[in-house]
Amino acid sequence: MVNLESDYNNGMHPEILRVLVETNAELSRTYGFDRWSDSAKEKIRKACNAPSATIYFIAGGTQTNKTVIDSMLHSWEGPVAADTGHINVHEAGAVEFTGHKVLTLPNHDGKIDAGELKELLRENIMDPNREHMVYPGLVYITFPTELGTMYSAREIEAICNTSHDYGIPLFIDGARLGYGLAASKDITLPWLAAHCDAFYIGGTKCGAIIGEAVVFPHGNAPAHFFTSIKQHGSLLAKGRLTGIQFDTLFTDGLYTDICRGAIAKAMRFKRLMLEAGFRQYIDSPTNQQFFVIPDAMIPRLQKGIIFETWGKVGEGETACRFVTSWATKDSDMDEISEFLNNL
Amino acid sequence: MVNLESDYNNGMHPEILRVLVETNAELSRTYGFDRWSDSAKEKIRKACNAPSATIYFIAGGTQTNKTVIDSMLHSWEGPVAADTGHINVHEAGAVEFTGHKVLTLPNHDGKIDAGELKELLRENIMDPNREHMVYPGLVYITFPTELGTMYSAREIEAICNTSHDYGIPLFIDGARLGYGLAASKDITLPWLAAHCDAFYIGGTKCGAIIGEAVVFPHGNAPAHFFTSIKQHGSLLAKGRLTGIQFDTLFTDGLYTDICRGAIAKAMRFKRLMLEAGFRQYIDSPTNQQFFVIPDAMIPRLQKGIIFETWGKVGEGETACRFVTSWATKDSDMDEISEFLNNL
Amino acid sequence: MVNLESDYNNGMHPEILRVLVETNAELSRTYGFDRWSDSAKEKIRKACNAPSATIYFIAGGTQTNKTVIDSMLHSWEGPVAADTGHINVHEAGAVEFTGHKVLTLPNHDGKIDAGELKELLRENIMDPNREHMVYPGLVYITFPTELGTMYSAREIEAICNTSHDYGIPLFIDGARLGYGLAASKDITLPWLAAHCDAFYIGGTKCGAIIGEAVVFPHGNAPAHFFTSIKQHGSLLAKGRLTGIQFDTLFTDGLYTDICRGAIAKAMRFKRLMLEAGFRQYIDSPTNQQFFVIPDAMIPRLQKGIIFETWGKVGEGETACRFVTSWATKDSDMDEISEFLNNL
Amino acid sequence: MVNLESDYNNGMHPEILRVLVETNAELSRTYGFDRWSDSAKEKIRKACNAPSATIYFIAGGTQTNKTVIDSMLHSWEGPVAADTGHINVHEAGAVEFTGHKVLTLPNHDGKIDAGELKELLRENIMDPNREHMVYPGLVYITFPTELGTMYSAREIEAICNTSHDYGIPLFIDGARLGYGLAASKDITLPWLAAHCDAFYIGGTKCGAIIGEAVVFPHGNAPAHFFTSIKQHGSLLAKGRLTGIQFDTLFTDGLYTDICRGAIAKAMRFKRLMLEAGFRQYIDSPTNQQFFVIPDAMIPRLQKGIIFETWGKVGEGETACRFVTSWATKDSDMDEISEFLNNL
Repeated sequence: MVNLESDYNNGMHPEILRVLVETNAELSRTYGFDRWSDSAKEKIRKACNAPSATIYFIAGGTQTNKTVIDSMLHSWEGPVAADTGHINVHEAGAVEFTGHKVLTLPNHDGKIDAGELKELLRENIMDPNREHMVYPGLVYITFPTELGTMYSAREIEAICNTSHDYGIPLFIDGARLGYGLAASKDITLPWLAAHCDAFYIGGTKCGAIIGEAVVFPHGNAPAHFFTSIKQHGSLLAKGRLTGIQFDTLFTDGLYTDICRGAIAKAMRFKRLMLEAGFRQYIDSPTNQQFFVIPDAMIPRLQKGIIFETWGKVGEGETACRFVTSWATKDSDMDEISEFLNNL
Repeated sequence: MVNLESDYNNGMHPEILRVLVETNAELSRTYGFDRWSDSAKEKIRKACNAPSATIYFIAGGTQTNKTVIDSMLHSWEGPVAADTGHINVHEAGAVEFTGHKVLTLPNHDGKIDAGELKELLRENIMDPNREHMVYPGLVYITFPTELGTMYSAREIEAICNTSHDYGIPLFIDGARLGYGLAASKDITLPWLAAHCDAFYIGGTKCGAIIGEAVVFPHGNAPAHFFTSIKQHGSLLAKGRLTGIQFDTLFTDGLYTDICRGAIAKAMRFKRLMLEAGFRQYIDSPTNQQFFVIPDAMIPRLQKGIIFETWGKVGEGETACRFVTSWATKDSDMDEISEFLNNL
Repeated sequence: MVNLESDYNNGMHPEILRVLVETNAELSRTYGFDRWSDSAKEKIRKACNAPSATIYFIAGGTQTNKTVIDSMLHSWEGPVAADTGHINVHEAGAVEFTGHKVLTLPNHDGKIDAGELKELLRENIMDPNREHMVYPGLVYITFPTELGTMYSAREIEAICNTSHDYGIPLFIDGARLGYGLAASKDITLPWLAAHCDAFYIGGTKCGAIIGEAVVFPHGNAPAHFFTSIKQHGSLLAKGRLTGIQFDTLFTDGLYTDICRGAIAKAMRFKRLMLEAGFRQYIDSPTNQQFFVIPDAMIPRLQKGIIFETWGKVGEGETACRFVTSWATKDSDMDEISEFLNNL
Repeated sequence: MVNLESDYNNGMHPEILRVLVETNAELSRTYGFDRWSDSAKEKIRKACNAPSATIYFIAGGTQTNKTVIDSMLHSWEGPVAADTGHINVHEAGAVEFTGHKVLTLPNHDGKIDAGELKELLRENIMDPNREHMVYPGLVYITFPTELGTMYSAREIEAICNTSHDYGIPLFIDGARLGYGLAASKDITLPWLAAHCDAFYIGGTKCGAIIGEAVVFPHGNAPAHFFTSIKQHGSLLAKGRLTGIQFDTLFTDGLYTDICRGAIAKAMRFKRLMLEAGFRQYIDSPTNQQFFVIPDAMIPRLQKGIIFETWGKVGEGETACRFVTSWATKDSDMDEISEFLNNL
């Protein structure tokens, strides 16, 4: 039985665990002022080619999104997101809980379109009732998206330029950033750092046990962001836990290796499924693969693979999600290959 | 040099780390539905003699306080706390950020007085302007307090009874609960569970690397508390991290052992300091010790001990805090003994 | 020149003013405990045939919506509204500012559909990720809608039943309620009171200078609603101002008369415009009339009528809004008739 | 029987009513863009000698306080107020409801002390835990205070200078501003406008039926303040209601006359009570008078005067409040004189 249910149903990458063991007896400074956090930030700055970046570590994705978005907005503003965006659907209204309406654009395979964004921003400015409405104050995109799809560099550039033309920043939710970078032909960390105002490097879903690294690439962290983190309840007393993990992830290319490995397995999985005659729900180049499975087939498939059902597609068919991670082994794919052959 | 700066400047207890290593390769359910979380909850229920308790794990103290307090209150209510209470001082207004005014009582060595609480609640009911004011909706105390002092069982019983007489629940912030239990003559987990409506068992400061266990001892968790945790950004995707830690802490009495050990060292430290002629700022039976140090002496003391200055006491004197933890060794106390002898 | 720009660009109905003058020298109780407020509430209870209704007066529509919605919801819930609903568009995010995400349904001429509502509520319950999402906690509709359209009794009944089947209340925004009642064939105040859990009777747009009457028809006001009003900043010190107005509006059928009069003028206006060859943007039976005006015609029309442009319809055409009120006179319609004849 | 219960248990000043009647038939622009609002703003600018002041009208005091304070603060900041300050006691936590903790200073007869303010601000900056605490972001005082006492010009100057030394603005709650100006020897509107960053001119308690005028004397309104007003639910559709009132209040010195008249009556009342042998609770130069009344005497006094009991003073004595307004007549004082003579 192979478990492809998610990329956060595992522990931490063994190398991270090794360093955690190695350093456990050491005493350190608290609240993220420890030496590993300092070192991790320095390595991330280098990896981003962003020497003046300010960087913070926060425990999880929703917490990061709400803390960053609330801190980057004025109280009369809201973030613009795809209707399928994580902040608009699966965060239990955490952003609204901090007082900001999420303004939505239709998604195209999980992505927003720069032209439609421009139209929304332009219409807002032209609207005679503008002052009675929430101001668009930030653009939020996910890379890769919740559907495993990816923006091209040109697409992000267009969104970035449009945002800036209208004077608002671009924030990229990178819960699975590593997988996006590993799968992208044209987007790298330095490129991202140069093309947005804030982003986070996902740890939890990319090999860490907990933790996301928020990057303000131009030294442009909101004023008193540390206090905002505390106010949001997002400050870790033992900040070394995230520091050690990101320091390890950004040593000797581990973050990249983890994600590339997962992508390789995902691509093999995709081939196996296609060969077995299954139809893609959406074509994803990342570690999340979506297939349309006839309902009658689901219990049979579940005899060999653990996966998540995603939603009804049509009569008698269901979109299902299969996810790889650092914990997926080559032997898992061998097992799936054999399983599918005998299905 | 011995570091007594805090009880969260260390890693995790080696036994926890051992289990983390042992279980790391295992895949598990997410969001706290893993087997360790289940097991930890069952062990905590037993330790509390509260078979119907509902239990949740949250990453840190401020997050726990804001999530629990906001969820237990109606929107027109606020918590009653000591003016020195953590939620009133060092949480960057996290509770107010969720919309609730913190109502304060004067502290007596960090504690509130049941009689004064009763007076506040009675006056509120009698106040003809009551409907123009925030309603007291919950009583918040810390055990032990921020000053290392402790309520007696009789004191908590009086506060509990007073709260209940006025129809509001009692919530106990147990960031350092283990130390309090280890130092108390009359308060045990089952006793606590029977004498309050909610409390949390501090992990971060008592041997874990992260995590607090919220206990609603009578199965009385607020409706949809899981969603509230998510909305507050407090939900961990890899809930196993807290599950494994609390499962280990509540196996074979580890939580108790850790805290008793730290108390023993704190008591030895207290004796050493008193013998060396230093004056207590406050007499604490817990792992936090406070001494009044002449300003001129501080740099000399800092040659052998790392500690935190707490605040000016009088002309030329400063209250200083010295904290032990699982990471404090007997040899540390030997070293301090020798250092103080040669001071 | 006739002004049909809005129904709140006028003063108060002369009869209200007369009573205001008559009672001005009298001293009274404050915060809405005055004799006129008491009398107004009693008259509204009678008009609604809802003897146990609890009633509050609040200054304006947005304030009413945010105070009522926030008070009727748990913190993990949000209201369901049409995407064109006032709370979702033109209230500057006031509902989200209190922490609640507005969940939207597509509008059909400004209305939501009971079938689509049921689908949303059913899907929410079936969604395995339900606990990670905002719970639908209340259904919000406007009667009449922002587009001047109206629900039939059957439509509201279906929405009401669907809401109740799923255990959530129905709240009706009646900013222009009087016009809806005057134009409806099957909906009366008693019928409304029996078919929703809360609604408000709009004053500001129906003859008052300020004020809306919130009705909880079954005595089902949220606990401590008075304090919530204060907390939202919505409590008037001189509550007599709204009390006197509603007492007058509900004496001798004034509220009904005002709205019927405005509807009669709106219907005459509609006929005049249709006769003049203009095309309706939407067919409204209420005091708001919408016509599609060729852009080149707009300045010409503006020589005789003041109105609001509503939005581009197609190439070279604009939807325009024309609104009548108590202040619209028969002679205004005579003037428009002549003006259109000579256009 | 003379009613001295409050200064908002009356209607509006007859002159305001006269203008309201006179202008009622006129149509106007909405949301405060009407000609009376424009004219009122211009007159207030002149009265304040503040030609670049930006001015907004809001319905009531709590609404004004919460909208202004929230808009002037960053999210990590809170206002500093006297513990007796209105925002800290009788606004049902409206400021905290917008996310900001109210930081308190001890009151001295209702006033804060510039020296203690400085100490609080200095200590905050020196506090090594500063980043874990709410930042003082604004100083809030009331003029006159809730106890009818008044700051001298020198005291306000010291508070203003201290605030500015620490880089934070001063906001003055002027719910009863007119009475303070009428009673003060050294404070005028131009002086006030020059010595604070924002204040409001109370209307509701000074002759209007509703409305407060917020003044940002240096053109320093927070960005998008109009939208913040809407978001807080504080925007009046028929802004003419407040426009007309303030236009009238600031025509021919009516605001000053109203308040001076009330003060004259209050001073006469004070003399009568002192002559009758009653003891002052606090010596107030404003329209609010406080006397200590033996409990046994209260029912006897209530046979001639309606007043509010304020709180127990000692054994068998109660502080009582007696308030004059525009509606208090000379004949009322004659009646009280006779009543007290025969007591």
